[in-house]
Amino acid sequence: MMSLRLWDLAGDDPARRFSPYCWRIKMALAHKGLAVETLPWRFSDRDAIAPHTKVPVLEHAGGSLSESWAIAEWLEANFPDRPSLFGGDTGRAVTRFVNGFADAVQMGGIARLVVADIPGVLVERDRAYFRDSREQRFGMALAEVVAGRETKVAAFRDSMLPMRLVLRAQPFLAGDAPAYADHILFGGFQWARCVSAFPVLEPSDPIWAWRERMLDAYGGIGRAAVAFAGA
Amino acid sequence: MMSLRLWDLAGDDPARRFSPYCWRIKMALAHKGLAVETLPWRFSDRDAIAPHTKVPVLEHAGGSLSESWAIAEWLEANFPDRPSLFGGDTGRAVTRFVNGFADAVQMGGIARLVVADIPGVLVERDRAYFRDSREQRFGMALAEVVAGRETKVAAFRDSMLPMRLVLRAQPFLAGDAPAYADHILFGGFQWARCVSAFPVLEPSDPIWAWRERMLDAYGGIGRAAVAFAGA
Repeated sequence: MMSLRLWDLAGDDPARRFSPYCWRIKMALAHKGLAVETLPWRFSDRDAIAPHTKVPVLEHAGGSLSESWAIAEWLEANFPDRPSLFGGDTGRAVTRFVNGFADAVQMGGIARLVVADIPGVLVERDRAYFRDSREQRFGMALAEVVAGRETKVAAFRDSMLPMRLVLRAQPFLAGDAPAYADHILFGGFQWARCVSAFPVLEPSDPIWAWRERMLDAYGGIGRAAVAFAGA
Repeated sequence: MMSLRLWDLAGDDPARRFSPYCWRIKMALAHKGLAVETLPWRFSDRDAIAPHTKVPVLEHAGGSLSESWAIAEWLEANFPDRPSLFGGDTGRAVTRFVNGFADAVQMGGIARLVVADIPGVLVERDRAYFRDSREQRFGMALAEVVAGRETKVAAFRDSMLPMRLVLRAQPFLAGDAPAYADHILFGGFQWARCVSAFPVLEPSDPIWAWRERMLDAYGGIGRAAVAFAGA
């Protein structure tokens, strides 16, 4: 068994691990039953992961790689005898659509609800970088980005309707058991609850029930995370 | 080989076959290399498909069934030696997400651009039913639904970003070759060009290039359809 190490975004509490992309990979590693050492990383720790620039970064016996999709494909290719993340070539190709939906719809939608809460969970040395880079991306102060979120959350929940239609028919996006399609969208919701007490989901939502199942999956690694209770 | 017949929504020109859900199935049948007799059906032909109420309806030696997803699953289960629509259980489960996205985002988005053009392609006896039922659904006149579409089309195109992210990495949603994930979203775009000259896509869009590939797939059955040139 090759030894695996994952650089994993952490907050002021080193046990608060909130990156949605890192969660995709931690769930994927658990799905394959692979042990991993996770290393806390902060935005200001640039040198630690060079030449990569963003986490997740997975280190293995033969080198290292970044970008969650590339890491998932690497895990599938290198551990083919472990439970599959994709269920074959077509499954992998179609799972890319879930990845695209997460990146195009879910991530931005959640960011507009919780991004102003993120500086509060970061180490002090990360705060100015985070605030400046995100304010530049949004073109406004983070407080303005999330202003009115109690109202705007309804539109976010509506935007998740494709998930809800699937969960009417099956317990997980990948069918009877979770796979990478689930890990992708779970990552976004786990990000939200690790950085903010703001309720992006309602308990009556079938997506909430799915998230509960995901929090309990793989021995409950999602449930064990440092997060905001009730979010 | 069992004989297959498909009730297929038709317009005043009986060769104009525009139902997005019927297109999903016509593409799926072509993918499996199955011959089918398509029967023109109009909204007012209720008795012809009873006890079903909507097309597509697939008739086979053992009976009949409706609802595009159920028909696709039936084709996969009954013709397992033909090219797969899903690539296995996980692929089928994840393809449901594409189906959910089409139903939640694409179909409504296209309807708000082209629905007012549909009465003009229907047989006279279908027009009042179609207009009344859709105006009730939208809560306004069809002309109001599509008002400002030259401007609103930008938001529709933005909503298709998940597709565009996938098509950066691979030629079809199902990978190197199309499968049911492609048939689903092609159905929506084919609906648009069969009922309206309004350009829901721009030629510079990677989704346009994908649609071109889909129009040419399976011997060009999509390209051969009665449609509006240039849409």
